[in-house]
Amino acid sequence: MSVVVLTPVEVPGSSKSRLSVTDLYKPEFSVHDPEATWISDSEVVYRNRDGHVIKFNFALNETEVILSNSTFVAFKVAKYSLSADLKYALFAYDVKQMYRYSYTASYIVYNIYTREVWELNPPEVQNAVLQHAAWGRQGQQLIYIFENNIYYQSDVRSISLRITSSGMEGVIFNGLADWLYEEEILRSHLAHWWSPDGERLAFLTIDDTLVPNMALAQFTGSTYPRGLQYPYPMAGQTNPAVKLSVVNLFGATHTQELQPPDQFRHRDFYVTMVKWISKTKTSVRWLNRAQNISILTVCDTTTGACVTRHEESSELWLSKQNQEPVFSKDGNRFFLTVPVKQGGRGEFHHIAMFTTQFRADQNEVRHLTSGNWEVTKIIAYDENTDNLYFLSTEGSPRRRQLFSVKTVGLFPRRCLTCELNKAHCLYFDADISPTNQHIILHCKGPGAPTVILHSLNNSNYYILENNSLLKAALKYKRIQLTDFRTVPMEHFDLPLKISYPPDFSDSRHYGLLLLVDSAPGGQAVSDYFSLSWDSVLVSSDNIIVARLDGRGSGFQGQRILHEVHQRLGTVDVQDQIAAIEYMMKFPYIDRTRIAVFGKGYGAYMTLMMLKSTDSLFKCACAMSPVTDWKLYASAFSERYLGMPLRDDSRYQFSSVLQNVQALREQTLMLVHGTADANIHFQHTAELVKNLVKVGANYSMQIYPDEGHFLSQQSRQHLYATLTSFYRECLKEELLPLPDEEEEEEE
Amino acid sequence: MSVVVLTPVEVPGSSKSRLSVTDLYKPEFSVHDPEATWISDSEVVYRNRDGHVIKFNFALNETEVILSNSTFVAFKVAKYSLSADLKYALFAYDVKQMYRYSYTASYIVYNIYTREVWELNPPEVQNAVLQHAAWGRQGQQLIYIFENNIYYQSDVRSISLRITSSGMEGVIFNGLADWLYEEEILRSHLAHWWSPDGERLAFLTIDDTLVPNMALAQFTGSTYPRGLQYPYPMAGQTNPAVKLSVVNLFGATHTQELQPPDQFRHRDFYVTMVKWISKTKTSVRWLNRAQNISILTVCDTTTGACVTRHEESSELWLSKQNQEPVFSKDGNRFFLTVPVKQGGRGEFHHIAMFTTQFRADQNEVRHLTSGNWEVTKIIAYDENTDNLYFLSTEGSPRRRQLFSVKTVGLFPRRCLTCELNKAHCLYFDADISPTNQHIILHCKGPGAPTVILHSLNNSNYYILENNSLLKAALKYKRIQLTDFRTVPMEHFDLPLKISYPPDFSDSRHYGLLLLVDSAPGGQAVSDYFSLSWDSVLVSSDNIIVARLDGRGSGFQGQRILHEVHQRLGTVDVQDQIAAIEYMMKFPYIDRTRIAVFGKGYGAYMTLMMLKSTDSLFKCACAMSPVTDWKLYASAFSERYLGMPLRDDSRYQFSSVLQNVQALREQTLMLVHGTADANIHFQHTAELVKNLVKVGANYSMQIYPDEGHFLSQQSRQHLYATLTSFYRECLKEELLPLPDEEEEEEE
Repeated sequence: MSVVVLTPVEVPGSSKSRLSVTDLYKPEFSVHDPEATWISDSEVVYRNRDGHVIKFNFALNETEVILSNSTFVAFKVAKYSLSADLKYALFAYDVKQMYRYSYTASYIVYNIYTREVWELNPPEVQNAVLQHAAWGRQGQQLIYIFENNIYYQSDVRSISLRITSSGMEGVIFNGLADWLYEEEILRSHLAHWWSPDGERLAFLTIDDTLVPNMALAQFTGSTYPRGLQYPYPMAGQTNPAVKLSVVNLFGATHTQELQPPDQFRHRDFYVTMVKWISKTKTSVRWLNRAQNISILTVCDTTTGACVTRHEESSELWLSKQNQEPVFSKDGNRFFLTVPVKQGGRGEFHHIAMFTTQFRADQNEVRHLTSGNWEVTKIIAYDENTDNLYFLSTEGSPRRRQLFSVKTVGLFPRRCLTCELNKAHCLYFDADISPTNQHIILHCKGPGAPTVILHSLNNSNYYILENNSLLKAALKYKRIQLTDFRTVPMEHFDLPLKISYPPDFSDSRHYGLLLLVDSAPGGQAVSDYFSLSWDSVLVSSDNIIVARLDGRGSGFQGQRILHEVHQRLGTVDVQDQIAAIEYMMKFPYIDRTRIAVFGKGYGAYMTLMMLKSTDSLFKCACAMSPVTDWKLYASAFSERYLGMPLRDDSRYQFSSVLQNVQALREQTLMLVHGTADANIHFQHTAELVKNLVKVGANYSMQIYPDEGHFLSQQSRQHLYATLTSFYRECLKEELLPLPDEEEEEEE
Repeated sequence: MSVVVLTPVEVPGSSKSRLSVTDLYKPEFSVHDPEATWISDSEVVYRNRDGHVIKFNFALNETEVILSNSTFVAFKVAKYSLSADLKYALFAYDVKQMYRYSYTASYIVYNIYTREVWELNPPEVQNAVLQHAAWGRQGQQLIYIFENNIYYQSDVRSISLRITSSGMEGVIFNGLADWLYEEEILRSHLAHWWSPDGERLAFLTIDDTLVPNMALAQFTGSTYPRGLQYPYPMAGQTNPAVKLSVVNLFGATHTQELQPPDQFRHRDFYVTMVKWISKTKTSVRWLNRAQNISILTVCDTTTGACVTRHEESSELWLSKQNQEPVFSKDGNRFFLTVPVKQGGRGEFHHIAMFTTQFRADQNEVRHLTSGNWEVTKIIAYDENTDNLYFLSTEGSPRRRQLFSVKTVGLFPRRCLTCELNKAHCLYFDADISPTNQHIILHCKGPGAPTVILHSLNNSNYYILENNSLLKAALKYKRIQLTDFRTVPMEHFDLPLKISYPPDFSDSRHYGLLLLVDSAPGGQAVSDYFSLSWDSVLVSSDNIIVARLDGRGSGFQGQRILHEVHQRLGTVDVQDQIAAIEYMMKFPYIDRTRIAVFGKGYGAYMTLMMLKSTDSLFKCACAMSPVTDWKLYASAFSERYLGMPLRDDSRYQFSSVLQNVQALREQTLMLVHGTADANIHFQHTAELVKNLVKVGANYSMQIYPDEGHFLSQQSRQHLYATLTSFYRECLKEELLPLPDEEEEEEE
């Protein structure tokens, strides 16, 4: 019997080294985001890589250091913000992450000129831990949130005014989201919105009194650790009640509640979007609990009366409910992306221009764009030039390019970024200056991210950050080659992203890792730059990594998205398996070495894939899986599966916990933080209980008392664990030379 | 390069099959315990393998079926007991295990003659779940415990009398142990004791009002699972307060508290033993919290006055505090084992005969036995024949033989079991009949257990159970060969038990698994029969399994036991490592394939061993480890390490959590039930948190919502997991032929 030993060797003649997990945590491999913001039409403030806060005047090409990095070090500043008059900074320290966006912190106010500092505390409170603190729109306006109540200061030295008093920790939230609103509705922990002049503040009051509490276990850190409870409505359970108010901050404070649309009164609804359109008017989107009727109103905040400006409904569910409409100054015209029928792939989101006729609730609608691509974001409306700026997937769903379209005539449109550094920049985001003269372009991939200030009138530009350190570091590493393909399916072709080792040769055999990491509406195949543990496997272990956007994914039209309606974990799972089968036909894929990884919704899909295949995967890892949609957030589960009925077959059918004996023969690793507030450890525990029942094998990594988002330390441990798990699983084995025919398995 | 493939082969010519984990769960591989009890001097009641309850008259050689197995099936009986007059049975169903001994159940009373049944419920309660129910000493006396209060019925049809009213679930326990008393003090969940005539009941009231509560997380079984809290005093925390009372059950009930010794008043103490010695007198052992002063009193239960009869103290800690003294009928003489200095191995427990002189608190003491062995249990005192029956380790610490010793003259002693079936029976337990005429001998190993009724006057005997099914089943299996050796150490030789595969050959190389599974005072090397997952590895995977009784272990004299005082996890751990090093010199041990398994205290030792060795072990598994003694039960931790001081170096030094980087390069599997009420999941969580911090690898199995004692289903899963873990870890690898010199590693 003869044996072939295949140990990976350095590419001959190549001086490039393999990427390691430790590399990922070196400073030169991190992407620096300068977090640039406009403070006037030609001035931005940003933080450079050295940690200095810089004011840059684009018109004069002048830079000024506003805060030096030593100030950050001296005060252990984790986050900062500048007052509207640029005289003060607010420094957050002792920041403790809560859920996806929320955190608590202590704050100091810092006088930039005198260097004087003092703590920001509510009246009569010492060493306060605040839920939020931020500057307002004018001068030194400040608000902060403490014990679920909003406090206001008209300037840094004035006395705090308590705007609300109903706040109760874990019960009634003012100006802040509860868990559900933060994660599923607003996608932010902030539930308040300044009027443009800083005179008014709109805020939500979210009442969780009747919402059942979920318990998070605590295991470490004290002799007798105590758990934590917080409101978490699961599918079909009582949702928080919500109220939208506006408080007038100048003079005697007065709070006015804004009236929800009549058809939602006395019913469950969500407020999904609030955007001021003038000093006294705000636009609000209200969505019914079933998430298939949505009403966009414009509210007069002095009276609380709201007028419907647009209504959407769907037989399935409505997406993009956080989208902010862009209004003309007089409020008579607004722009919004709405689904427009395009052909085979169904509806795509395109820009509609609504112009008020005769009555405020009657619009003339004009569609400014169309095609088999979608508008992902409307950036701004320049009334002077009749230009509407927006991002779209025109050209490829993987890309985000900045376009302008004329709001008159034949709506001619022009790509502003398509010719910009085409080799490295195909995925943009943009921030326009207040009077639409300049724009900050964020190139997010496929090359190392850069942030560039551009004039919209001429070709002037200024590079705020080009991550040159990262680019240089990457030069000396064996970095993956990326290839995009489409998997031909019966009705749709589905995009596939494949990362190959740099010395890839199609005469060799490679192990394949499929990454499944996006929820419905998400996108895994794009030109977004990313460098993570999977890049290590490609670079160092000659593993091919693939991602597929199957049915249920976003940015390819509503039809593909809506395929998962009422059938999560079926067609989306079939597509992932189809992608594997497609790739198994590549001569260079070793069909005995195929693995899968998924996190969150992806972990759910991973488990469903394992259940419906038999020894297709050599191994799999599911991190923080949802295993039963009845146990997951109401707003998510109900969106796709509806309100659960007694013995609901849709919920049962979509549950991982049914027929787990199908998982018996799989090599499965489960990973979960025990204090995950998003997908509770409960999901993994229920699965494990069922696995034990049927005598199934599994291995596990837990992160004690860690949440859905691991601490950096745990993340580093996780990456080491994942790379070694897949390295071991997908490594080439000592194999007898193929003197026997390989059997075809189907 | 040449390769040797060594796959295990069946022994040629052998028709015996390998033992598997599934075998262990087949009925023929289970040991049947008939649970025989004396009901008169010549009659026993027992349950045979078919499930019938039999009354057997030894004198007449008559058997009678009292309850048929169909009755057990009909009522889903999990446990049964018979009334003193044998007219009724108490059947427990829906039994739910709580801690090590305790359980809750529902009960029915069954009339054996009329087959009438009814539920046993407290007054005004339906479908009660009771904490305990049992017959008394006379007729149909019944007591039960509900919501921590004791209820009494003088006969099956009489009204229940509530004996106590202070009971409060999770706070004040009457007649029942709290967690600490159950696990560490009484080693039983029962904290009440009948007087011999059934007229009085002694009971503890355990008050946990000031004891901190520990929380057990719950993850599964309901949409919003809720955890559980229960009093659990950790090292140095407030202990339960305890009170011993006696209630007079005949006539008007009257409760009398028994007075603790003066020196314990207003101090923390434990009541470790209560034994009635006459109709009105009871002996009680009181132990101070430090567990180094113990007072044996005799209490007059009519007045509550207690007189000290014996006092023990130690500079270290006192062991065997549950031991019941055996009194003469008049109460003037009693027998007790006490530590007696014997030479090199220090003190051994030997029988002392205490005879009252002049005053009740002055004894004449005579030592009936001596030698380098210990008396493990005094069975009975026959005043008519001046015989004292006892079990001892004379001959070998591995054994328990029944002896009698004359309490007069030169105390001649005689072994009663030494010549009994020597090949199979070396480890006995015994139950003597009320007037010492007959004895039930439990042979517990090394062969398959048997239970035999023996006359003490002649050679008559009757086999109640010889587990012939098991013996037959074992004949067809490849069963381990057991060898006992001693590891020579500087001061002591330590006993080692080695299990070899049946076709062992010293010219082959074997993997070695060390089992570490006993706490201080325990014994792993004995002739006790056992067949478990490790037997599977020996039988089926050609792995050698070893157990060592190192310093800290019991039955070899106090000096070896006391070696761990104030240094848990040091000398005991060194000894286990020394045993490995000793065995590594055996030519047939493959020193590259050595593994270790430990549970509870053994898991603690396993982790400490891993920390102090470098690549000695190829892999290790620690199940339910204690990782920090500060977090473990007061009575246990303080016994060995004392009350924890601030920054206590003994506690710190003995903690697994210090210097966990030493665990970085080890292949470690952790196993823990998440609702372990004994060794909390907290211990594993703290360890994992530290492992993550230093980037150490580990793998894990959790049993969601399972306690320290796994359900049968989970146990079966565990055994499969452990066998496959060690099989994989210890398997012979494809190795190049040894054409290079092996390097000596030290």
